[in-house]
Amino acid sequence: MFRADEGLAFLLRYENIAWYEAGAVSILDRRIYPVRVESVVCHRHEEVARAIADMVTQSGGPYTAAAMGMALAAYEARELDDEAYLAYMERAAYTLSHARPTTVERMKAVTARAMKALRRELDLGTSRADMPEKLREEAIARLNENYTRYDQIACHLADKIPHNGTVMTQCFAETVIGTLLRECRRRGNEVKMICPETRPYYQGARLTASVACDMGFDTTVITDNMPAYTMKTKKVDVFTSAADVVTMDGYVVNKVGTFQIALAARYWGVPYFTTGTPNLAHPTIDTVEIELRDPELVTESMGRKHTLPGVKGYYPAFDVTPPKLVDGIVTDKGILSPYNLKSYFDPAV
Amino acid sequence: MFRADEGLAFLLRYENIAWYEAGAVSILDRRIYPVRVESVVCHRHEEVARAIADMVTQSGGPYTAAAMGMALAAYEARELDDEAYLAYMERAAYTLSHARPTTVERMKAVTARAMKALRRELDLGTSRADMPEKLREEAIARLNENYTRYDQIACHLADKIPHNGTVMTQCFAETVIGTLLRECRRRGNEVKMICPETRPYYQGARLTASVACDMGFDTTVITDNMPAYTMKTKKVDVFTSAADVVTMDGYVVNKVGTFQIALAARYWGVPYFTTGTPNLAHPTIDTVEIELRDPELVTESMGRKHTLPGVKGYYPAFDVTPPKLVDGIVTDKGILSPYNLKSYFDPAV
Repeated sequence: MFRADEGLAFLLRYENIAWYEAGAVSILDRRIYPVRVESVVCHRHEEVARAIADMVTQSGGPYTAAAMGMALAAYEARELDDEAYLAYMERAAYTLSHARPTTVERMKAVTARAMKALRRELDLGTSRADMPEKLREEAIARLNENYTRYDQIACHLADKIPHNGTVMTQCFAETVIGTLLRECRRRGNEVKMICPETRPYYQGARLTASVACDMGFDTTVITDNMPAYTMKTKKVDVFTSAADVVTMDGYVVNKVGTFQIALAARYWGVPYFTTGTPNLAHPTIDTVEIELRDPELVTESMGRKHTLPGVKGYYPAFDVTPPKLVDGIVTDKGILSPYNLKSYFDPAV
Repeated sequence: MFRADEGLAFLLRYENIAWYEAGAVSILDRRIYPVRVESVVCHRHEEVARAIADMVTQSGGPYTAAAMGMALAAYEARELDDEAYLAYMERAAYTLSHARPTTVERMKAVTARAMKALRRELDLGTSRADMPEKLREEAIARLNENYTRYDQIACHLADKIPHNGTVMTQCFAETVIGTLLRECRRRGNEVKMICPETRPYYQGARLTASVACDMGFDTTVITDNMPAYTMKTKKVDVFTSAADVVTMDGYVVNKVGTFQIALAARYWGVPYFTTGTPNLAHPTIDTVEIELRDPELVTESMGRKHTLPGVKGYYPAFDVTPPKLVDGIVTDKGILSPYNLKSYFDPAV
């Protein structure tokens, strides 16, 4: 099970987002949370990939879902012979990691870890029947390592937030927000949170604001056309977001909207800190494909259409913030300049 | 009736937004258009003011509604004696012009015009029974003058749009958008329109996009977190918006979101042109009160709540774009620098 340290209990509620058990992966449906708390239950790893593509879960969720999806694939493959077994698992790793184009490289790291564990367990003589449980344990080990890293990131970021200051976010930074707020609370820093709603899925309004409000922090939601003005009137001290990709040349790929909030932050002199890890698989921004999603999703809200027939939509899921608008990449090893990200991989650091 | 010139017919559909007839003002409910076409019918001028405050109509709509509301007030007052009659009309003018704080000065110009017409008609011996019709005629005369001015504005703005170029808007610029697109069509310029949806009421998605699409232009809606990224990927040539107030020191007060799109435009080198008239009643930006609306409206969409109880909302209806981000104020007298708006009132111009 999850490492249930004191203080981590709150995370379980938001983190228990994808769970393998007895031939199925249950994924908390973040498209409707908190209005309804429901799960999508997947009986095949392809359904897990579909759920990721359909944005049933977002932020860190897809990585956990992919890891749990590998456990499910091992369950599906339990009666195949050696060669077919490995080939099946390799195909599952491909399918799960390629669910969404922008995050393929990060997802491949997750499925590669599962494959490495699988090979290790095969060498150790672990039975096919026990393999799903072993891969689930591996997924949990990965989560726990992440918690430790997020705790370190949260400490570094908390250093930059003034006492009882105001923090603006974008979209849902999942564990980072939880660990940051926990760290602020430990320090007696009752920060105020301002969460742009993050259309079209409202992750900021539904997820980030729910976590912050549930933890007892002063939490305000604004629509996505308000950050630049609100930054001034509500005296925002820090803008922070996670990143779906941090390229080695210092670009931040994150939920669409991040770039224009970063522009506003630069205009007002508010620092913008990105939490994330530079990705060696992306030496430059040119290696990142920005996912275009179903245009129909922007001409409706929560399933209700609000445009005339004939009006088109356009839905880039992410945008690109250049290094010159990023004040620091907050990693577990400290806050790095976006212009010197190779230092993250320096063994001396 | 409206001046029904060739080519103006399309305007009537979008402009027939508030209409006095037989003791009532009917106002097209733009909060639900185009999903449903319904009117709010007001039998008292206070109900007209309430409808304006409730944003039944927006953009240029409130000014027409106020003018028609004065006709309704004259109907209500038809049996009062001279002194009470004028006092009643003065109170109605106050109530209608103060429906929303940010636009009081512009609204006062509309109600003052109605009061001037009323006094003129009283001097001419017009009966109380005929007065509502006279004030309705005055409201229509005002609209027709506006059409002429909008046509001139549209010509100046059309000069700045490249052939088959791409135009980004914000919120709903009503007649300006219609006359601009008509002028582009006359010139054989098949512009493409990109309309941010404009939360929380979706005026961009529901109104601007409907006008442009209905006129046969290529029309795309994006959510409010996408303008900065889309400006680059869709090669936007011009960003344009109307203004609720243009202050004499060059600040543009318009629907919240305008400021951050102007920031993005400046970043990408895209010109931002504001259509509007400098307002002598606002010598500086300090004289403008930014309306704060019901915070609950940002924690829901089309009446459906999407946040946890305890999460707050914040809803500034407008924002402020400084002159340094505005490339020109497009008036009927030409395109003016935001730094030299007094030239608008120069009799030689």
